[in-house]
Amino acid sequence: MASYVVTGASRGIGLELVKQLLQEKSVGQVFALSRSQPAAALQDLVSKHSDRLQHVKASVDSTESVEAAAKEVATKLNGSGLDVLVNNAGIQLASPGGTRTMTAESLTEVLDVNVVGVQRVTAAFLPLLERGKGKKVINVSSTLGSIAWADKFAQGPVQAYKISKAALNMLNAQYALDFAGAGFTFLAVSPGWLKTDLGGEYADLQPEVGVAELKRIILEAKPAMNGKFVNIHVPGMEEAHGRYDGGEVPW
Amino acid sequence: MASYVVTGASRGIGLELVKQLLQEKSVGQVFALSRSQPAAALQDLVSKHSDRLQHVKASVDSTESVEAAAKEVATKLNGSGLDVLVNNAGIQLASPGGTRTMTAESLTEVLDVNVVGVQRVTAAFLPLLERGKGKKVINVSSTLGSIAWADKFAQGPVQAYKISKAALNMLNAQYALDFAGAGFTFLAVSPGWLKTDLGGEYADLQPEVGVAELKRIILEAKPAMNGKFVNIHVPGMEEAHGRYDGGEVPW
Repeated sequence: MASYVVTGASRGIGLELVKQLLQEKSVGQVFALSRSQPAAALQDLVSKHSDRLQHVKASVDSTESVEAAAKEVATKLNGSGLDVLVNNAGIQLASPGGTRTMTAESLTEVLDVNVVGVQRVTAAFLPLLERGKGKKVINVSSTLGSIAWADKFAQGPVQAYKISKAALNMLNAQYALDFAGAGFTFLAVSPGWLKTDLGGEYADLQPEVGVAELKRIILEAKPAMNGKFVNIHVPGMEEAHGRYDGGEVPW
Repeated sequence: MASYVVTGASRGIGLELVKQLLQEKSVGQVFALSRSQPAAALQDLVSKHSDRLQHVKASVDSTESVEAAAKEVATKLNGSGLDVLVNNAGIQLASPGGTRTMTAESLTEVLDVNVVGVQRVTAAFLPLLERGKGKKVINVSSTLGSIAWADKFAQGPVQAYKISKAALNMLNAQYALDFAGAGFTFLAVSPGWLKTDLGGEYADLQPEVGVAELKRIILEAKPAMNGKFVNIHVPGMEEAHGRYDGGEVPW
């Protein structure tokens, strides 16, 4: 059975993903990482699945915190490797007044969590992943990070988020190149625009729908997909704004 | 005659660009921005062209410093607008041990100068640019920032730089969308791999060659090119590694 680390697991996509992963028989130990003590929903889940699910504290904006978390997971895995890392933790800050009103502080903060945070986590967990069989690193990206599609999403005033996801896609590409031929799959996935705290109430899809697809993609990920950037598939919504056709997203 | 601000003008591409701009009759006032007092080469140039060239101190990693520089340029322009902003300042840090060895600190530093720095400068100078006639913002990017071409450049261990330039391309896209129809041209340009301090001795081209092309592209930039990402053209090197064919670079 495969072991998983999911960052940003306290709510939204991360929480739902942990929930859905636990429904899979192929899923063994799940480590749900979040920056503070688990909120009620995650705590409930941990209580219900105490044999397979453990919470580990990790702030992705702190190298020290992330390295301590990797050490804790290694101890809990007790000599086994880690199979799958899901870099899901992310933040979004809006600049409704336009790109010119995006402060240096907000851009820095979003880049620190969404890009540097992924680097901290990936670097810290790689030794464990190298000892695992799955060798999958799933980076939760967004079609908002597609420069080619920037005009489709011009109305969304989350410039820093878009910039961070374009940067994340390049980080994913760099790792994919480094580990090509080593059995790894570094995959950037857009989980769709979901009705989470981050996505907001006007989003396209219920979290369950997007996350079911994200889970499917994670389970199906294989080295042939290393370095790719893929979208979820929602039947009937292939031509919708988010183009949920399950295809590759252009950079 | 058009007025110019060039950041990172103390050496390399910035210094050479200032030098070449001064050879153009269409170029009026040039403001050469750099973080410290001008080094000998720039000081010589200022002495020779004291009627058209002025040095202005600006550290792109400081919002305060950049805003003070914009105020100083506004005063020197004495009521006139600014025509062209060239965001050239940039740094590069290598992680020869692979992406996993890229420290959070080095990635943060490169993003701060190459992405957040461009945001600081662009936001600070936009009011002056809106009063100018040229309305050009040239972002010095790199084909190393092309995710589509990442495999071409897999050998270059400057992961943070690549990530920062992909992010910069999205920042350019965001501004281009915001100012489409307002007469602006936001253009990302790859000046080629040049034998500067940053590019190193093994680079493809002499700085003069790449900068002559950069200058040509700046002079020819027009609203129809708003939001694009273009390469230089070096006859005979269209099929070379850097693909210097003057075409658009895929994201």
